[in-house]
Amino acid sequence: MPQPLHDLAAALPEGALLTGEATEPYRRDTADGAEAGVPLAVALPRTTEQVAAVVRACAAHGLAIVPQGARSGVAGAANAIDGAVMLCLERMTAVLEVSTVDQVARVEAGVRTIELARAAADAGLFYPPDPGSWEISTIGGNVATNAGGMRCVKYGVTRDFVRELTVVLADGEIVRLGHRTVKGVAGLDLVGLMVGSEGTLGIVTEVTVALRPAPAPTAGLSAAFPTADAALAAAEALVAEPRRPSVLEFLDAGCLVAIDAMIARGEAPGPRLPAAEALLLVQSDGPDAGADVEHYAAIARAHGATLVETAGDPARADALMELRRLLHPALRSLRGAVLNEDVSVPRAQLPALLEGIQQLAVDLDVTIVTGGHLGDGNLHPFLAYDPADVARSIRAYLAVIDLAVRLGGTATGEHGVGSLKLPAIEAELGSRVVAAQRAIKAALDPQGLLNPGRKY
Amino acid sequence: MPQPLHDLAAALPEGALLTGEATEPYRRDTADGAEAGVPLAVALPRTTEQVAAVVRACAAHGLAIVPQGARSGVAGAANAIDGAVMLCLERMTAVLEVSTVDQVARVEAGVRTIELARAAADAGLFYPPDPGSWEISTIGGNVATNAGGMRCVKYGVTRDFVRELTVVLADGEIVRLGHRTVKGVAGLDLVGLMVGSEGTLGIVTEVTVALRPAPAPTAGLSAAFPTADAALAAAEALVAEPRRPSVLEFLDAGCLVAIDAMIARGEAPGPRLPAAEALLLVQSDGPDAGADVEHYAAIARAHGATLVETAGDPARADALMELRRLLHPALRSLRGAVLNEDVSVPRAQLPALLEGIQQLAVDLDVTIVTGGHLGDGNLHPFLAYDPADVARSIRAYLAVIDLAVRLGGTATGEHGVGSLKLPAIEAELGSRVVAAQRAIKAALDPQGLLNPGRKY
Repeated sequence: MPQPLHDLAAALPEGALLTGEATEPYRRDTADGAEAGVPLAVALPRTTEQVAAVVRACAAHGLAIVPQGARSGVAGAANAIDGAVMLCLERMTAVLEVSTVDQVARVEAGVRTIELARAAADAGLFYPPDPGSWEISTIGGNVATNAGGMRCVKYGVTRDFVRELTVVLADGEIVRLGHRTVKGVAGLDLVGLMVGSEGTLGIVTEVTVALRPAPAPTAGLSAAFPTADAALAAAEALVAEPRRPSVLEFLDAGCLVAIDAMIARGEAPGPRLPAAEALLLVQSDGPDAGADVEHYAAIARAHGATLVETAGDPARADALMELRRLLHPALRSLRGAVLNEDVSVPRAQLPALLEGIQQLAVDLDVTIVTGGHLGDGNLHPFLAYDPADVARSIRAYLAVIDLAVRLGGTATGEHGVGSLKLPAIEAELGSRVVAAQRAIKAALDPQGLLNPGRKY
Repeated sequence: MPQPLHDLAAALPEGALLTGEATEPYRRDTADGAEAGVPLAVALPRTTEQVAAVVRACAAHGLAIVPQGARSGVAGAANAIDGAVMLCLERMTAVLEVSTVDQVARVEAGVRTIELARAAADAGLFYPPDPGSWEISTIGGNVATNAGGMRCVKYGVTRDFVRELTVVLADGEIVRLGHRTVKGVAGLDLVGLMVGSEGTLGIVTEVTVALRPAPAPTAGLSAAFPTADAALAAAEALVAEPRRPSVLEFLDAGCLVAIDAMIARGEAPGPRLPAAEALLLVQSDGPDAGADVEHYAAIARAHGATLVETAGDPARADALMELRRLLHPALRSLRGAVLNEDVSVPRAQLPALLEGIQQLAVDLDVTIVTGGHLGDGNLHPFLAYDPADVARSIRAYLAVIDLAVRLGGTATGEHGVGSLKLPAIEAELGSRVVAAQRAIKAALDPQGLLNPGRKY
């Protein structure tokens, strides 16, 4: 056995180092368009100490390390690099502690987001971040990407809930960053620096998150609008309410047509959708959720909503969200493949973004439908494309990003850069900022071993 | 004129460079115990470009730079260093923009916190962070220290509201960090890194903060308890409520005695205080604030509160907070001088913290009274001392920090490290974390010019 593999095997328990064919399932996240290399090996540690031992072995041999959770990412950040060691934390699944008094949970990085949410709920508490993949994603992956979700409009993103991290640095040292306390300014905010760094600054092995008191049972509504502008105006009024909606999602006409076609084909249950140019899906989990939703419904109607349906209990509120969940499968059946964008703009620029996207679709002769987190200005334009014509779709993908950045927005609200969005990042951030980021990267990872070529 | 002063003068408009006696008012923040040197000069730029020109001149001559706002800090971070240039942003006072649709304000760093709050309120919006010094502190200083305040228990700290920063880096380059959008993960979180870095990584000249819809008029209550433990138990129940109080402050028996003595001497208006071992001051700014406060009052009574007073409107709620405002002057009159600590512990450790502080006061024969932000575990033990006996008070000060850190807490919840708490920081963070922070500092400020010797 070559020395690197020998040293890696020695760092791990039996059966925790995979090579050859066995590495295949670990080579890719869900970003269809991103490259994936052939790794040297996959390491499956069960403890922080084993992670540290793997990192030391990699450092000794100059091997690149790609940290990985559940590979549910959509930007290629967890894809294999040729000759690298895939450091997959899927076996670190312990929920270590839930404290009701401190309102925190401490879990290993491989714990799935849904398991964390359940552990919190079992203690009468609440972990709000709900990335779309939360049933399969890991909290370590959420931290690496600073994952968002539908409830961000009220509660914020993963970063807003991370208190403390156990991190293995590039030299194999184990550190504890941040503080369990609500407030703390003793050091630089290295927790904030790690969150969203996509595995380029250290390997997160344990996470302490803040929890909140459990909210009231959710109520919801759906509102169909005759124009997209009317829906945008209603959304602007809704986020101006002191009782902030916990969810404020948007589906444009193209989304609705695709979903309706799926229902028409009998591939999804439910009645056919009414013809509409836009749909808002809104929820409240406030103490008076039912009253909130009636109030939101009145706002929707005042802005021209033609069909408003309210749901006063969680089961019916959840049923209204079913349309949102049908979006991905519906789009995939449009043309065979879908590129999922993740642009974010200041709310005032949302009309210009939607209009600009429609113009791009015409100019570049591509199909783009748009849905997503309207309440925080983070939309997911979906490029449905024929897999045989990937070049055109990538051009359109980058054109949408360029549009968002010109409107004062960003290429990525919650998915991350990975490798897929690298070409757009320097234009957005500017070369001096990218240089500063690289300097920080070099300070923490002088050998450049941690997920090289991603993020910057 | 020596070349450095010549170059500094050339970087600034007429009258914006002070030397000699004129620098005296700029030498100190409010930390009585911290050293202050004699600066070379004070620079008072009006624009980001002037700040950049000053930084370039300093870099060319190897001059240390101490950034400074209103000098309302309490850790010595803005105190003069011998031979340094004090870069004071007090003349950069423009409110550049308030956007109701994007719910953001963009202001220059020298804008006072209260002016920012007023500009937000004028637009029907709300800037929640309210550090104790908010009437005089600048937003730049708030960013530099990641300032807290009374409303953190509901809304979070300054960092939670900063979206975008204009920063002059150590080489004099001007960069824009962060994003105006609600969400954005295109780069590393350099905004989070700058917030709380106490002027050691860059000079913040412009700040974009998130605003919220204006809350409902505030209601409040005060509740006196026969034991500190009863007050702590009531506070624990209050933060478990889904309708989170917007303020949850604590005054221990020593605080109450000192304030009552001030009232007895006629130095403050109001009736004498009832004998009590602890007082909670609670507010709500929720849509049903009056109902919230009645509910909180019931919780206080259920936990043994002997005297509960509620106030259903903002004016009366504010009057109840008057006791909290009397605390500082009351303590100063106890022994002549006061050291204000800023420890934070996990909530579950609050009883042990208060008990441990009482034991330390006995063991070290010092007077320590404790008040502060009970709702988020961030307390301010106040060491009242005879100025002739400063050594003993510093010993006690460090012993309280040591106690908080042993309880899983931190030396500083919201005031910062400055120079005053430097001796305690390595023990709290560990040497590897401090080394990582220094590496980041060196990456961004290779000459070590920005506020050297502070924070790390």
